[in-house]
Amino acid sequence: MSDFDPPRGVVAQVVAMALAEDFGILGDITSLATIPRGALAGAAFVARGAGVVAGTASATEVFRQVDRSVVVTWFVTDGSTVVPGTVLGEVSGYTRSLLAGERVALNLLSHLSGVATLTRRYVDAIAAAGAATRVRDTRKTLPGLRALQKAAVRAGGGANHRDSLSDAVLVKDNHLAVLGIAEAVAAARDRWPGRVVEVECDTLEQVAAAVDAGCDLVLLDNMAVAEVRTAIELLAGAIPVEVSGRVSLDDVGEYAAAGADYIAVGAITHSVPVFDIGLDLG
Amino acid sequence: MSDFDPPRGVVAQVVAMALAEDFGILGDITSLATIPRGALAGAAFVARGAGVVAGTASATEVFRQVDRSVVVTWFVTDGSTVVPGTVLGEVSGYTRSLLAGERVALNLLSHLSGVATLTRRYVDAIAAAGAATRVRDTRKTLPGLRALQKAAVRAGGGANHRDSLSDAVLVKDNHLAVLGIAEAVAAARDRWPGRVVEVECDTLEQVAAAVDAGCDLVLLDNMAVAEVRTAIELLAGAIPVEVSGRVSLDDVGEYAAAGADYIAVGAITHSVPVFDIGLDLG
Amino acid sequence: MSDFDPPRGVVAQVVAMALAEDFGILGDITSLATIPRGALAGAAFVARGAGVVAGTASATEVFRQVDRSVVVTWFVTDGSTVVPGTVLGEVSGYTRSLLAGERVALNLLSHLSGVATLTRRYVDAIAAAGAATRVRDTRKTLPGLRALQKAAVRAGGGANHRDSLSDAVLVKDNHLAVLGIAEAVAAARDRWPGRVVEVECDTLEQVAAAVDAGCDLVLLDNMAVAEVRTAIELLAGAIPVEVSGRVSLDDVGEYAAAGADYIAVGAITHSVPVFDIGLDLG
Amino acid sequence: MSDFDPPRGVVAQVVAMALAEDFGILGDITSLATIPRGALAGAAFVARGAGVVAGTASATEVFRQVDRSVVVTWFVTDGSTVVPGTVLGEVSGYTRSLLAGERVALNLLSHLSGVATLTRRYVDAIAAAGAATRVRDTRKTLPGLRALQKAAVRAGGGANHRDSLSDAVLVKDNHLAVLGIAEAVAAARDRWPGRVVEVECDTLEQVAAAVDAGCDLVLLDNMAVAEVRTAIELLAGAIPVEVSGRVSLDDVGEYAAAGADYIAVGAITHSVPVFDIGLDLG
Amino acid sequence: MSDFDPPRGVVAQVVAMALAEDFGILGDITSLATIPRGALAGAAFVARGAGVVAGTASATEVFRQVDRSVVVTWFVTDGSTVVPGTVLGEVSGYTRSLLAGERVALNLLSHLSGVATLTRRYVDAIAAAGAATRVRDTRKTLPGLRALQKAAVRAGGGANHRDSLSDAVLVKDNHLAVLGIAEAVAAARDRWPGRVVEVECDTLEQVAAAVDAGCDLVLLDNMAVAEVRTAIELLAGAIPVEVSGRVSLDDVGEYAAAGADYIAVGAITHSVPVFDIGLDLG
Amino acid sequence: MSDFDPPRGVVAQVVAMALAEDFGILGDITSLATIPRGALAGAAFVARGAGVVAGTASATEVFRQVDRSVVVTWFVTDGSTVVPGTVLGEVSGYTRSLLAGERVALNLLSHLSGVATLTRRYVDAIAAAGAATRVRDTRKTLPGLRALQKAAVRAGGGANHRDSLSDAVLVKDNHLAVLGIAEAVAAARDRWPGRVVEVECDTLEQVAAAVDAGCDLVLLDNMAVAEVRTAIELLAGAIPVEVSGRVSLDDVGEYAAAGADYIAVGAITHSVPVFDIGLDLG
Repeated sequence: MSDFDPPRGVVAQVVAMALAEDFGILGDITSLATIPRGALAGAAFVARGAGVVAGTASATEVFRQVDRSVVVTWFVTDGSTVVPGTVLGEVSGYTRSLLAGERVALNLLSHLSGVATLTRRYVDAIAAAGAATRVRDTRKTLPGLRALQKAAVRAGGGANHRDSLSDAVLVKDNHLAVLGIAEAVAAARDRWPGRVVEVECDTLEQVAAAVDAGCDLVLLDNMAVAEVRTAIELLAGAIPVEVSGRVSLDDVGEYAAAGADYIAVGAITHSVPVFDIGLDLG
Repeated sequence: MSDFDPPRGVVAQVVAMALAEDFGILGDITSLATIPRGALAGAAFVARGAGVVAGTASATEVFRQVDRSVVVTWFVTDGSTVVPGTVLGEVSGYTRSLLAGERVALNLLSHLSGVATLTRRYVDAIAAAGAATRVRDTRKTLPGLRALQKAAVRAGGGANHRDSLSDAVLVKDNHLAVLGIAEAVAAARDRWPGRVVEVECDTLEQVAAAVDAGCDLVLLDNMAVAEVRTAIELLAGAIPVEVSGRVSLDDVGEYAAAGADYIAVGAITHSVPVFDIGLDLG
Repeated sequence: MSDFDPPRGVVAQVVAMALAEDFGILGDITSLATIPRGALAGAAFVARGAGVVAGTASATEVFRQVDRSVVVTWFVTDGSTVVPGTVLGEVSGYTRSLLAGERVALNLLSHLSGVATLTRRYVDAIAAAGAATRVRDTRKTLPGLRALQKAAVRAGGGANHRDSLSDAVLVKDNHLAVLGIAEAVAAARDRWPGRVVEVECDTLEQVAAAVDAGCDLVLLDNMAVAEVRTAIELLAGAIPVEVSGRVSLDDVGEYAAAGADYIAVGAITHSVPVFDIGLDLG
Repeated sequence: MSDFDPPRGVVAQVVAMALAEDFGILGDITSLATIPRGALAGAAFVARGAGVVAGTASATEVFRQVDRSVVVTWFVTDGSTVVPGTVLGEVSGYTRSLLAGERVALNLLSHLSGVATLTRRYVDAIAAAGAATRVRDTRKTLPGLRALQKAAVRAGGGANHRDSLSDAVLVKDNHLAVLGIAEAVAAARDRWPGRVVEVECDTLEQVAAAVDAGCDLVLLDNMAVAEVRTAIELLAGAIPVEVSGRVSLDDVGEYAAAGADYIAVGAITHSVPVFDIGLDLG
Repeated sequence: MSDFDPPRGVVAQVVAMALAEDFGILGDITSLATIPRGALAGAAFVARGAGVVAGTASATEVFRQVDRSVVVTWFVTDGSTVVPGTVLGEVSGYTRSLLAGERVALNLLSHLSGVATLTRRYVDAIAAAGAATRVRDTRKTLPGLRALQKAAVRAGGGANHRDSLSDAVLVKDNHLAVLGIAEAVAAARDRWPGRVVEVECDTLEQVAAAVDAGCDLVLLDNMAVAEVRTAIELLAGAIPVEVSGRVSLDDVGEYAAAGADYIAVGAITHSVPVFDIGLDLG
Repeated sequence: MSDFDPPRGVVAQVVAMALAEDFGILGDITSLATIPRGALAGAAFVARGAGVVAGTASATEVFRQVDRSVVVTWFVTDGSTVVPGTVLGEVSGYTRSLLAGERVALNLLSHLSGVATLTRRYVDAIAAAGAATRVRDTRKTLPGLRALQKAAVRAGGGANHRDSLSDAVLVKDNHLAVLGIAEAVAAARDRWPGRVVEVECDTLEQVAAAVDAGCDLVLLDNMAVAEVRTAIELLAGAIPVEVSGRVSLDDVGEYAAAGADYIAVGAITHSVPVFDIGLDLG
C-alpha cells in the first residue's frame, strides 16, 4: 500500500475489464501453442526512458488475476524517478502466465507512469520558476481510469482537484445564466453547507464579484499571465487563486511566478505520452 | 449505426462506468444549486481544432443514460474531417441534464477524435509518400477502452490488428525460447487450424525461417528502413509484410515506400493528444 | 428530475439488485397462477401516516425495470409533507406487472420517506428552538444505499456531510496517534490542497489547537450542551462548528441554541423507522 | 461458517458495493495524510449496549477486501448475546487498512446486530407469554440487503418466511379480483405443484374458504387478538396459522398466546434501530 | 409477458453476456464490410422441425439490445406446438442489426425450444400411459441459464422443482451421515418452519421412516418400477411421491402408471437436443 | 493451468453466476439444518460412463468460491479418456462446503465433459475413416458458456472456429444480397486487412467464384458427400475446405474421406448429452 495507490476495488475492476478485453474467448493462443505447460521464467520490468513510475499496484493486480502463483517484486515505488535501464521490478512464475499478463500490465504501468512523468515535468517547471504553486488535475480524465490517473498525478507530485461532480461546487459561466455570482454562491452555500465553493472567472469584474460573494477559491480561466498577475494583486491574498486554460509546459512557470496557488492542467490526464517500459524475459 | 461504431454493449458499459466515477454519490451539485429545475437549453459541440471525428455514438449514449429526454443530433459522422469552428452536433433538453453529461461526453468525444486524428496523420503521411500501406493499431490500448479506440482507428482510416490474444497467433521472441520458428509455426497451425499465424522477426535470418515455416504474415520489428527494404526484396511478395517498432510520423512514409503492406503504430492508441472539442451553450 | 434525485445510474443499480433478490429464478409465481395474463389495473400509493416523501424516482425505476408499459404518475414530489390518506401517486398497467413491482417499490419508497421524515423531525426541533443550525448526515448509512439515503436527507431538509472518505479530510482521535493536531492539519493541507479539513475535538484544548492549526471546521464530539456553548464562545465565530455524538430529538434544540452551525446525526440514516405507505389496487 | 452466514457471494457483492461508495475515487484521504505508511495497530470491536450479534462474516469480508493482510478474530459468533463492553472481536494490521475499513465494517455489523437484537426481543416477548410461536420475517427488507438481514433474523432466533416471490405462493386480496379462494388455490396447485400455498385472510369466512381450498397455511392479516383466537379455534389445528399486520412488541405475546404458529413481523427488517458497536484502536 | 417468461432482469443479463461473447471487440465485421449501412430487411423465424416453442422473450431482448429500432413480432407464444415450416415470428429493421443479432437469438430460441420440446415428450409419454403424473425439472441445469430453462420446462408442460438450494429442504443420503431421517426432518422443521421438506429414499425402510418423520414429500431415487409401485402402495396416499433417477422416455410411462405424483427428469435441462429453427431473410 | 483452460476471468464469472442462481437468498438450507457446523468429509468425483474429461478448472473454481479452505485434487487432466468408475479427483473440507458446491461443480464438469466426449466421438469417427480432417466447433454455443465449451472442444480433440463475430470474416448468403462474392471478398480485404476471409458456398459455381475472389477458406454448406468430393477436386488444394451443415456421426467419416480439411459441427456445443459424473462422499 503505497501513498499513491488508488482504492483496491477500483484497481481490481479496471484490471478485470482489461484482461477480459485482451483475453477474449480463447485466451493467449500463441503461448498455448508454443510454450510448454510447466515452463518457468523470470522477467524484469525495465524503463526505456527517464521518468516517474506509477501504477505498480495495478501491474501487480494483473498477475494476481492471471495466476496467483506468479511472484511480483518491485524495486521502486510509485513516485520514484528512474533513468533508462532502471529495473523497476520482477515477475517470476509460469512462462505462460507471464506472457498472458504482460501486455495488460505494461499498458497500465506505462500509461500511468506517463501521467506521473508529465505531471512531474509541470511540477519541475514551476520549481524552476522559483514558485510554490501546486499543479492540480481536472475532470478531463480517460473514462474508467480516473481513480488510477489521479493517483498517478499524485505520484508525479501533483495534487487532485475535484474527484467528481459530487465533491465540490465549481460555478462556471453556464451556471450563471439565471443567477448572478453572488446569488449562485449563496445558493451553493445554502444547499451544500460545509463544502468548498469555487468560482470560475474570465474577467477582473467576475473576480471581484466572486470574492465579494464569499467563495473559497477563485479559478482564473483562459487569462494571460499579465491579467492573472493583476487579478492576484487585486485579491491581495484574500482567497487562494487557481489558474486554468491550456497552460503549457512553456508558460506554466510564468503563471506560477505570477502568484497562482494552483494551476489546473488537463493535459496531464487527457494527452499523455506513454512512458516506455518493457518486460524482458530473463 | 455508423461504419465505425463499437459494439453497443461495450459503449453502454464504458459510459456507465464513466458516469459513475463522475457523478459520485451526490451527482452534479453545482447545477443542482444554481440551475432551476425546469430550465431548458441547447448546446453545440464545436471543434476547436482541425481533425477527424470519432466517438459520436459514445457521446450520444452519455446523454441517453443521463436523461432519455435529451435530444442529440449530429451533423457529422465518425470519420468526418472537420476544421476549427465546425459544429459537430447539438444537444437540447433540461439544462441540468446537459451540464451533468457534458464532461463525460467531451472526455469520450475528444479522446476518440484524438485517436482518429492521429491515425489520419499517419495515413496521410503514407499517402504523401505515394504508398498503399495500411496503418494498423496494436494491443497497446488504454485499459477498458480498446473497442472504442479500435473503432476510432478505423474512423481515422486505419485498420485493426488483433482485437485480443484470442484472435490470431503472433509468435515473438519470447515464444521461441523452446521451439524454433518452424516448430512454433507448426505447433500453432496444429493447435489453431484456420487462424492467421504471424511471426515477429528481428533479423533477415528469421524472416527467411518464418517464410519457410509457412506463416501468413511476417512482422519486421525495430528494423531500419534499409533493412526493411532488404527483407521485402528477399520475400518477393511471398507473404504480406508488417513493420513495427516505434515508427514515427517522420519516418512512416519511408517505411511505407519501402514496400510494407502494414505498419503497426502503438502511438495512435497509447500516446494520443486530445482533440479539443467544446460544448457551447446557446 | 427533482432537486433530491440521486444519480440515475445508482438508482438503476439498486433497483436491479432489489428486483433480482425479490424475483429469484421463477418470478412472481402467485400472480402467474392467479392473475389472467392480459388483466389491467390501476393502483394508488397512499400514505398511512404523516411525514415527508422521498424515493419517488426509485419507485418509478422499479416499474420501468419490471415492465416499460406501466405508467407511473406522482402527485407529490420528494420533500413534500403529507398526511395520512394522501395519495402520493398512481400506477396503471398490467395487473401482474403492478403486483410484481409492488413490494420493491414500497420497500424503497417507505424506507426513503422514513429517512426524510426523521430528518424533518430534527429540522423542526431546531426551528422550534429558534436556531438556524443545519442537520447533516454522516457516513453511518446502510450499505449500498448511501446515495439514496443522502438524497432523502436533503428531501427532509437536511444537508449532506462527506459523501465518501475521498471527499474531505476529517481528522479524528485515531489519526492523532503519531501526529499532533497542528501537524495533521498541515499534512492534510499539503497533500490535499483546496479541500475542506475538519478536526474532531473532544476537549476545549483540542478545539483551541484545531483553530490554531487553521482547519476549516471543528467537530465537537460527545460534548454536553454546556461544553459546546463554551467551545463556541471560545471560537467566537472564527470557523464553523459542527456537533456530533448521539444527539437526540430531545436535545437537538438545545445544542442548536448553543450556537452550533451544523449538527451531525447518524440516526437519520442508521436507525430509521419505516414511513408506512401502501399500494391500493383500485 | 456459522449457522447464520448468508451465501458468501452475496456478502462479497454487498461489501464490494459498500466499499466502492465509501472510498470514492481517492480513498481514505485522511489516513493517507496523517498515518505513516507502515504503521501497525490493533483494534477491538466493542459492544456499547446489550443485544445479539450478527454480521461478523460481513465485517470480516470488509477487511479481506480492503487488505488481505489484516487479521480478523472473533470472540463471539452470530447469535451470541452480549452486554455493554463485550469485546466481540479484534482486527490487527496496517493502521491505514483498519481505518479504511472501519466505517463499512461497523455499518454492517451494527445494522445486522440491530436486526438480530430486535428479532430477539420479539422472540423473548413470546417466550415470556409462554408460547412456542415462531417469529418470521417478511419481504419488507432493505433493498440489496435481504440475504444479510434474513440471516440476522435467524441469528436473533427468528425464522425466514419467503426468500423471494419465487419461493412460495401467497394469495392476497389483490390476487382474488378474478378468482375466488378455491379457484386461486387450485390454480396455484396446478401450476406450482409441490410448493407451499398460503392464503392471506381478513375475515373468518376467508379462513374457512382457505382451509376448504386445501391451502397449507393461513395468514391472518390485521386481525385483533380476539379474532385471531376465534379463527384458530375454528381451524382446530387443521393447518398452521400465521399472524401478520403490525404486531408490536407490546402485543406480540398476546397474539402468540392466542395460538398462532407464526407471527410475521416487518419491523425486524424495515425499522431497525442500530445496535451500537465501536472499534477501539488499542 | 407470456405465462412462461423468466424474470426480465435475468433475461437482460443473459442476453447481454451472450452478445458480449459473440461481438468481441470489433462486432460483426462481416456485415460491416458487406452490408450497406442503411440497408433494410425483414426475416422470419422458421421451425425446421416439429416441437414446442420457448424463449421468444429472450430472442426479442437480443434485438432490443442490438438495436432498439428493430421490430420483432411473434405469431406463436411460448408453449405453442409447431410443425416444420411454421413461421414463429418476424423481425424487420436494418439488415446489419438483424444479422448481428441472428446467431444469439437463434442460440437462445433453439436451445430453450429444445428444452420445451423434450419436456413435452415426457409429458406426452405420461399422458399416453393414462397417468396424471407431473414432470418436474431438477437443479441439473446449465450454469447461468437456470431461470430460462425452468421457464422453458413450464412452456413444455412440465413443473418446476426447487429453484435453488434456498427454496426447500431435500434430505439426501449425504445429509444422513450424522442424523437419522427422523432427526433430520425434525431439525429441518425447526430451523426452516413453513417450508417443504422432502426426503430422498433408496429403500422401503427409508420410505417408512420418512413418512413417520412427517415429511411433506418422498423422493424415490433409482428404484425399479416394481419397487416404486410397492412404495406407493405402502404410502397409501399419505403424502405425494416423486420418482427420480435417470427415468427415460422409454419407461417414464410405466413409472407414472405406477402412481407417482411427480417424476423428476434431469435430462430435460442437462441433455437437450437443439430444436432447429432458422432465420430466413426475405 | 492445463492446455484446455478457458480464461480464468470467464471461469470465475460463470461460476459466480451459477452459484448465485443455486444459492438464492438463504443458501443450502438442507445442509444448514442437518450437517453439524464443523463436520469434515472427503468426496470423490467418479465417472459413471466412458468419455473425455473437461471442466476441471471450473469445478475447482466452484469450491474456491464456496470456501477457500476446501482442498481440490485432480487425478486426471482435461482431455483424459476415462472409463466407468474412474476417480477423476477428490475434494475435502467442511461437509457443508462440499455439499453446497456439489451440484454446480457437477453441472459444469458433466456438461463440459459431455462436450469433450461428443467431440471425441467425431474425432474418432474421422480417424476410423483414415482421414486427417479436423473437427471444428461453431458459434452455435450455449449463451454465456462459449469460452468454456470451446475449451472443452479442444479437450475432446477438436479445434475452434471463430471465437466471435469479431474474429474472422465469414461471408454467407445473407451477405450477398447487394454485393457479389468477388466484391464482398474485396470489401472484406479492404476493411479488415490481415484477417481470414472465408466464404460459405452452396454450389460449385460459388466455390469457383470464392476461389477466384481470393478468399482464404471455403465453407461447403449442406452439400452431399459426392458434391463435396467434386468441389474438392475442383479446388485442387488451392485453399483449405471446410464442410458444414448437420454432419452427423454417421456420415462424418465419409465427408472427411472426401478430403475436407475441416468439418464444422454445431451439435458438439448445442446438443450435448451430459457425461454422467457423481460426487461420492467417503
